[in-house]
Amino acid sequence: MSTLWKSRYANRTLGIKSSAIRELLKVTQKPEIISFGGGLPAPDVFPVKRFEDACRKVLAEKGSQALQYGTTEGYQPLREMIAHNMSRYGIVATAENVLITSGSQQALDLIGKLLINRGDRILVEAPTYLGALQAFNVYGAQYVSVPVDDNGLITEHLDSSLRAGPKFMYVLPNFQNPAGVTLSEGRRHQLILLADKYGIPIVEDDPYGQLRYEGEHIAPLVVLDRENLSRDNGFTLGNVIYLSTFSKTLAPGIRLAWIVAPEDVIVKLVQLKQAADLHTSTFNQYVAYEVAKDGFLDQHVKLIRQVYRERRDAMLQALHEYFPHEVTWTHPQGGLFLWVTMPAGTDSNALFQAALAEEVAFVPGDCFFAPNGRNEGGRHMRLNFSHSQPEQIREGIRRLSVAVKMQLRSPHVTQ
Amino acid sequence: MSTLWKSRYANRTLGIKSSAIRELLKVTQKPEIISFGGGLPAPDVFPVKRFEDACRKVLAEKGSQALQYGTTEGYQPLREMIAHNMSRYGIVATAENVLITSGSQQALDLIGKLLINRGDRILVEAPTYLGALQAFNVYGAQYVSVPVDDNGLITEHLDSSLRAGPKFMYVLPNFQNPAGVTLSEGRRHQLILLADKYGIPIVEDDPYGQLRYEGEHIAPLVVLDRENLSRDNGFTLGNVIYLSTFSKTLAPGIRLAWIVAPEDVIVKLVQLKQAADLHTSTFNQYVAYEVAKDGFLDQHVKLIRQVYRERRDAMLQALHEYFPHEVTWTHPQGGLFLWVTMPAGTDSNALFQAALAEEVAFVPGDCFFAPNGRNEGGRHMRLNFSHSQPEQIREGIRRLSVAVKMQLRSPHVTQ
Repeated sequence: MSTLWKSRYANRTLGIKSSAIRELLKVTQKPEIISFGGGLPAPDVFPVKRFEDACRKVLAEKGSQALQYGTTEGYQPLREMIAHNMSRYGIVATAENVLITSGSQQALDLIGKLLINRGDRILVEAPTYLGALQAFNVYGAQYVSVPVDDNGLITEHLDSSLRAGPKFMYVLPNFQNPAGVTLSEGRRHQLILLADKYGIPIVEDDPYGQLRYEGEHIAPLVVLDRENLSRDNGFTLGNVIYLSTFSKTLAPGIRLAWIVAPEDVIVKLVQLKQAADLHTSTFNQYVAYEVAKDGFLDQHVKLIRQVYRERRDAMLQALHEYFPHEVTWTHPQGGLFLWVTMPAGTDSNALFQAALAEEVAFVPGDCFFAPNGRNEGGRHMRLNFSHSQPEQIREGIRRLSVAVKMQLRSPHVTQ
Repeated sequence: MSTLWKSRYANRTLGIKSSAIRELLKVTQKPEIISFGGGLPAPDVFPVKRFEDACRKVLAEKGSQALQYGTTEGYQPLREMIAHNMSRYGIVATAENVLITSGSQQALDLIGKLLINRGDRILVEAPTYLGALQAFNVYGAQYVSVPVDDNGLITEHLDSSLRAGPKFMYVLPNFQNPAGVTLSEGRRHQLILLADKYGIPIVEDDPYGQLRYEGEHIAPLVVLDRENLSRDNGFTLGNVIYLSTFSKTLAPGIRLAWIVAPEDVIVKLVQLKQAADLHTSTFNQYVAYEVAKDGFLDQHVKLIRQVYRERRDAMLQALHEYFPHEVTWTHPQGGLFLWVTMPAGTDSNALFQAALAEEVAFVPGDCFFAPNGRNEGGRHMRLNFSHSQPEQIREGIRRLSVAVKMQLRSPHVTQ
């Protein structure tokens, strides 16, 4: 007998595709499979001992507050620390510009809730972060997709897309998920000018910004926006909402991220967050503050950079050695992912099955394209290099090359 | 200079009223004020030492998993423990019927997201839990309000409200927030029959069910529903979604609650939760499991009952001693709140100001009524008895009686 509920579901898109990926990733949990599929940080770099000390200290000294309800905005010392830390990257924000969220996924959900009416178009990169599409889909978003190249979002032909009147642009400038590419400084300036010209604000998602393994830091859009707008006066932050997280620098299991926005936007987001989960775990905020403080976070990020750089290099080296010359890949300057492009006609879902037979996994590219954009995902795969040890990476890429070479012999593939 | 964002807000209700209450409650943070305003558990009963041991154990033995990303459904041993614990209350559920949420507020948000299209009517109690109204408002809910009396939701005249076709009923059967009343057994049976007759499912919110200080446990609606429906066959759980939480039994600062629902509903909620925050803090789930296991939770709940019973009794006693005879109040058999009714014409917001002058605070009743219901909140106040020590309660009620007596002399009040 079925229940009454089914007939009562609201008219919302429920991310069926994402659900398929979850199923897919479950297959890859088997120990014999080397998985480049997830987006997991390396557990080897979790600062477990520091967490232990922090938990003990927080509970011993502030147990009553840390286990109690807290404010929706977040734990004030943590907000202040985040504002302070970001100032070193030129981001001018006070604690009042910072809202603590339950991971960046919640930031995306709240932004969707705040801004998206059914049918609104959002300008996204092609490919873009799957989790953002999931969050925005729930609110009935439509998409304008703009392709990326090795220098990130191609801003040169953006005018027509912006004239179409998207509600906002969603951009990952640093070591983009999934493509691993970085928006160049020139294009960042151009994007800010275009945003201003067409009056289209930007949501800048920067989960990996601190994880740069080579090249120079490039100012985030939120900084360039301010420089551009400060020719006027009387405002603190302008037309960019900036997102970042502790998931890649401390640990994802504590679900702590933040939104930087003008205060009037924060006030609205706080109301929505209150309705969504009251507030983010007080305990985790106290603990993260204790873990991160006194310079530990900076020092720890240096360690992560070192470990991930080595893994990225191992993957690049193995790709170079094992992969056929028709296949290309991005050279990420940071982050967790690289993006492989195969000849036209390749079917990355068929490749996925072939790869599984070789006991290696990745995420097929098509799920990173907005539903109504041109989807070239069949030619792509996303590879994660942060979660596996260098020797596993090498062996995994070798296995994958076997599957790739087999696929390239398929009659559909353009040689 | 204003930002581009304001003009881009979506067409959503942003809980302005709730925001007013937040401001109001901020006033009551001053140390000289005795506040019956919040809904806070007593920090004195937080099992801080047990949390310390659990954190140490989890980090030492399972640090890599506890700090990593987790599954959206929740930590499997915790889901199993919850299913097992609930079975003692007759709730037949497996881990697959349990979704871990980031507090009950998120459960309400996900239910709103799953079920409410703009303009849908939800049947709620008058008064009802403010947080549910906030969660549902975001999705454009309208309301059908049905009054409660000392035996909870008045089911006797429910037919016409159900014929109006609400999408679902939202009910708090045990020690309701804010009224402190409990739905009688007879009415529970009646409600289940009516739900069946009109095909209107029920969301049963039970945050306080284990905190009963007197009287016998009454079977939750989710159990009665199953008994009713099991005359048919082939299903596990039926037309009631059941919510509960660790916020009142362990600690609210860890933001851990759960939804019990048929598996097909859980599958949909999981997709929405994935888009909302990926998953609830892995670390907190591991820690809560360690804290709760081996019978600790049961033993700890006994302690909480003892402490809160004493506080409830202190408040009832003080009300009896100090309050004028025209004023009445509920006698909660459990939970955290009682509900005071003053003569017609009383303005609880004016009373709130007068109470502040006496250095005591409460929540005026009007915010607990759905926007389009008949709002009798002006005559009511919600008093929390869990958070203050008995001697503070006594002094607070004395102060409040001074303000009440003053208000009763107002010419608007019916004598």
